[in-house]
Amino acid sequence: MDRRIKIAIDAMGGDSAPEMVVDGLAVAKQQLPHVDFLVFGDETKVGELINANRALAQVCEIRHAIDKVENGDRVAHALRKRRQSSMRLAIDAVKEGEAQGVVSAGNTGALMAMAKMVLKTMPGIDRPAMATVFPNQRGSTVMLDLGANVECDANNLVQFAVMGEVFARRVLDLPNPSVGILNVGEEDVKGHEGVREAAHILQQSPLPIHFYGFVEGTDIGAGTVDVIVTDGFTGNIALKTIEGTARFVGYFLKRALTSSPRAKLGAWLAKPALRQFKHSVDPRRYNGAMFLGLNGICVKSHGGTDKLGFSNAVRVAADLIEKEVNERIREDLNQLNEISAVNEAAEG
Amino acid sequence: MDRRIKIAIDAMGGDSAPEMVVDGLAVAKQQLPHVDFLVFGDETKVGELINANRALAQVCEIRHAIDKVENGDRVAHALRKRRQSSMRLAIDAVKEGEAQGVVSAGNTGALMAMAKMVLKTMPGIDRPAMATVFPNQRGSTVMLDLGANVECDANNLVQFAVMGEVFARRVLDLPNPSVGILNVGEEDVKGHEGVREAAHILQQSPLPIHFYGFVEGTDIGAGTVDVIVTDGFTGNIALKTIEGTARFVGYFLKRALTSSPRAKLGAWLAKPALRQFKHSVDPRRYNGAMFLGLNGICVKSHGGTDKLGFSNAVRVAADLIEKEVNERIREDLNQLNEISAVNEAAEG
Repeated sequence: MDRRIKIAIDAMGGDSAPEMVVDGLAVAKQQLPHVDFLVFGDETKVGELINANRALAQVCEIRHAIDKVENGDRVAHALRKRRQSSMRLAIDAVKEGEAQGVVSAGNTGALMAMAKMVLKTMPGIDRPAMATVFPNQRGSTVMLDLGANVECDANNLVQFAVMGEVFARRVLDLPNPSVGILNVGEEDVKGHEGVREAAHILQQSPLPIHFYGFVEGTDIGAGTVDVIVTDGFTGNIALKTIEGTARFVGYFLKRALTSSPRAKLGAWLAKPALRQFKHSVDPRRYNGAMFLGLNGICVKSHGGTDKLGFSNAVRVAADLIEKEVNERIREDLNQLNEISAVNEAAEG
Repeated sequence: MDRRIKIAIDAMGGDSAPEMVVDGLAVAKQQLPHVDFLVFGDETKVGELINANRALAQVCEIRHAIDKVENGDRVAHALRKRRQSSMRLAIDAVKEGEAQGVVSAGNTGALMAMAKMVLKTMPGIDRPAMATVFPNQRGSTVMLDLGANVECDANNLVQFAVMGEVFARRVLDLPNPSVGILNVGEEDVKGHEGVREAAHILQQSPLPIHFYGFVEGTDIGAGTVDVIVTDGFTGNIALKTIEGTARFVGYFLKRALTSSPRAKLGAWLAKPALRQFKHSVDPRRYNGAMFLGLNGICVKSHGGTDKLGFSNAVRVAADLIEKEVNERIREDLNQLNEISAVNEAAEG
């Protein structure tokens, strides 16, 4: 990388903040030597932690925040009362152009609402979406929305498709990513009106989007398409169902592999392979949900993650910044609007 | 069991019908010696298969059906044109009182629609629901709806809660089953109006239902509650996401355990344990989605299952019949209506 980038960090968000956050920055610093951090939080506490690591201290600027968002805060309360919180000040820094993106492991609802209020949605986007990348048998798939919008209409879903496609093309480096809408069956007649209308719009769309059609829950793990579009209610439940199922399968596997001396010996022999397996399905490797559709990069780390997970969320933010994802989404939306205008003029 | 029961079988439904179905009946016969089968299908083909197994032939009565429902049939077409199909005749047999329940591995939408049209919904139930039992870390959980109704209002969800609770009490033998509504968070303010209103009704309900509150996707695998209530869109996607995730995790596990000679040796030593693990998470053990809320027992087997899976679907039907689940649901609904009437009179 030739140019340095700067990311604002909410040091006080997350179950084990600020220790986990600072440890995560130390890991991120090693992988991302071209990134500087603007760290918001309790100056004394955070300063001590950062200054204990000289190499890290060199790329961090600490800004004092007298307040922080609590996990139990209602969204409205956080918006009104937490204007001096580390989360809010970190978002403000992106708005002011001091940083190119923000990462927080704090209260998801508050982060989403604050980011939306401060950074505003892009022209052409009605609602931002929460997106993340899932591993699968073929590689990886980006899925959105994962909970930012519990109810979505057809236009919201179409906008999510545009954003997800740009992300897959630019960040996952896929030349012609396929896009599917999550539904209860593959046939055109399946599902409710929202998904059917969105599919119709995408089928007719002049944008060069490779629209695959409807996909089902099994297609998330199979990797049938590169981008999966869904409403935030279903997406959030699918996301957490994946987590729960992986944990449940892991539980039975562990129980089986400790059930007899012979099984234990086998597990010991297979240990390096099982470690590789664990690595393949490690949720921390995919930590970092992006809010797409805002005038600024905002990444949410899982609140219960560790330093490795947090460093991955930082990497996601750096990727989004370097690959200019927001600029590309804006271009695609402009193109969509222009083509629509031309078509309307021709029809009129 | 002191009394014999009779189950109508659609022998022509399923990817490998009728062979898979007849093989499944042979397995079921061993586990359920008190069950007789009324088998609908191509008399010649099905007759040959059944008569090759003398013990099975003794508990089967074969009825000829000149037609069958195809997997690609639209629901409206199946309803109008497939009145002589094996599926329809098997459902008719329940309506006529010739059998106490029906099992089919055929077209889900057609089975649901036919069963609803022929058997009708119970008084007090607006829409039947598709339910199944999931294994989890604590035991098992029944979840409904899994796809019969893509859009559900609060009253539908409340009725699903009543039916699921009766099922858990009677079939899973849980003395005081807990009921949760699937949502994007546990707090009261989360989710859309439908789930919030349903939760409110259940909280206020005079029925002795142990309502836990909202649960999330992770709670399916964790077994936080005994009954999970959701709309058919979300439920279907959660169900298939579980399937896909289990397959994806299995894929990476297999890849790891065959990645080196050492891993292979370890896997060989752990083979009995791994077989036990596979058994624990085997989807065939939980095959058999029930349609609850109809005046008759109707069980859908997965179309791509094998004889073991089909025999489990038959066992589910036998359980529902023997444990008089429909009678108990009817009683609970009556009680609910009576209490409501008394309350309304008192208020008025």
